Amino acid sequence: MTAETAAAEPEGEAIGPAPAPGSRRPGGRTARTRAAVRDAVLTGLAEHGYPGLTVEYVAEHSGVHKTTLYRRWGDLEGMLVDALDLAGDDGWTPPDTGTLEGDLRALAHEVTEAFSDAALAAAPTAFIASAFQSQRAADALHAFYAERFGRCEGVVRRAAERGEVPVDTNAGAVVRAVSAPLFMRLFITREPIDARIADQSAAAALAAARAGAFRTHTAATASDAPDSTN
Amino acid sequence: MTAETAAAEPEGEAIGPAPAPGSRRPGGRTARTRAAVRDAVLTGLAEHGYPGLTVEYVAEHSGVHKTTLYRRWGDLEGMLVDALDLAGDDGWTPPDTGTLEGDLRALAHEVTEAFSDAALAAAPTAFIASAFQSQRAADALHAFYAERFGRCEGVVRRAAERGEVPVDTNAGAVVRAVSAPLFMRLFITREPIDARIADQSAAAALAAARAGAFRTHTAATASDAPDSTN
Repeated sequence: MTAETAAAEPEGEAIGPAPAPGSRRPGGRTARTRAAVRDAVLTGLAEHGYPGLTVEYVAEHSGVHKTTLYRRWGDLEGMLVDALDLAGDDGWTPPDTGTLEGDLRALAHEVTEAFSDAALAAAPTAFIASAFQSQRAADALHAFYAERFGRCEGVVRRAAERGEVPVDTNAGAVVRAVSAPLFMRLFITREPIDARIADQSAAAALAAARAGAFRTHTAATASDAPDSTN
Repeated sequence: MTAETAAAEPEGEAIGPAPAPGSRRPGGRTARTRAAVRDAVLTGLAEHGYPGLTVEYVAEHSGVHKTTLYRRWGDLEGMLVDALDLAGDDGWTPPDTGTLEGDLRALAHEVTEAFSDAALAAAPTAFIASAFQSQRAADALHAFYAERFGRCEGVVRRAAERGEVPVDTNAGAVVRAVSAPLFMRLFITREPIDARIADQSAAAALAAARAGAFRTHTAATASDAPDSTN
């Protein structure tokens, strides 16, 4: 997206001030404008973080005029929310290695590698930070991860079909358990993560799933989980 | 601490601009001043969050003069770091219910209850948020949680002595696994937590520990964990 294409865009294509998370629009100029704004928001977040991001920055780096930005997105928060919404459109699919162990390890390593690369980590980190300051950003982050973990659940459902875990395993809880120690170390306890920690997270989630700790049809306590001799 | 005691405090008691995390000072006026500043920082964080906290607020609510604040703590970041350092001095001890299951569940419920109470949650949440904007706050948060989880490790060591988990279980990893899904839901995926989620976190960590997923003397992969028929 360049300043020229932005300038050429018909005014009549205005799509409202605050696109709802989850809404999808057809391609063409509107989609290109939206992508250019998304790219500028991501670059700005990576460079300056949420408190440092400005509408001026987004205008300059997207080539979209400030008046257009305000008219379509309402405010910076609207641009942030829409960028996070678009980030969910990346076509990412979870691993399918043939075993639950392989899939959970691959998921853990993806998180670890993404957040170990400062350039890749900057924008997601800024999104997470922005949720502390903006309820709309928090809602968008919630929607993003709900959809993302929803896609991951297939990993656990396939494992249940193969008989690797109980059929009533809460798939969402298993895939969250893989990422949780990694996210906690990154953003709460501020501890490093590496391949060993990733393996440990995956191994723990797998062992707990196998032992029935994530079953939905029993109370979620260890006493109710199947005995380890079963 | 009132304005009068602050005013009466001898100037000669200055203790340097930026107390190092982990340093401890004897009681008396200096300790009372420090506690008053800590209380004002916590109240300010709870009311306004980190971006909204000001030296003026801390001065007003602690009764300590701004010049004294700047001389002793250097800046607002120094006050934040020292408040977090003092928060580690709370004498908290982990549960000792007699079983690992009971202890892990009690830990999970403590986290859930603390963060379900908006008044209790406000200051810790602001500390976590501040670490996104301040490296010194991130370092202090790291030190706080390292010490806190260090205290929790006794729970796992006692369980190993009772034969509930392998003797080479990584105690730090187990106690982190209990809290991680709760912290991730609170601050990353922005999902609610409740007693059921707390029970599930504890049950999963327990099952994984029993299955050997947190053993230190074997590679941390599920394949290396003892078979579930053991």
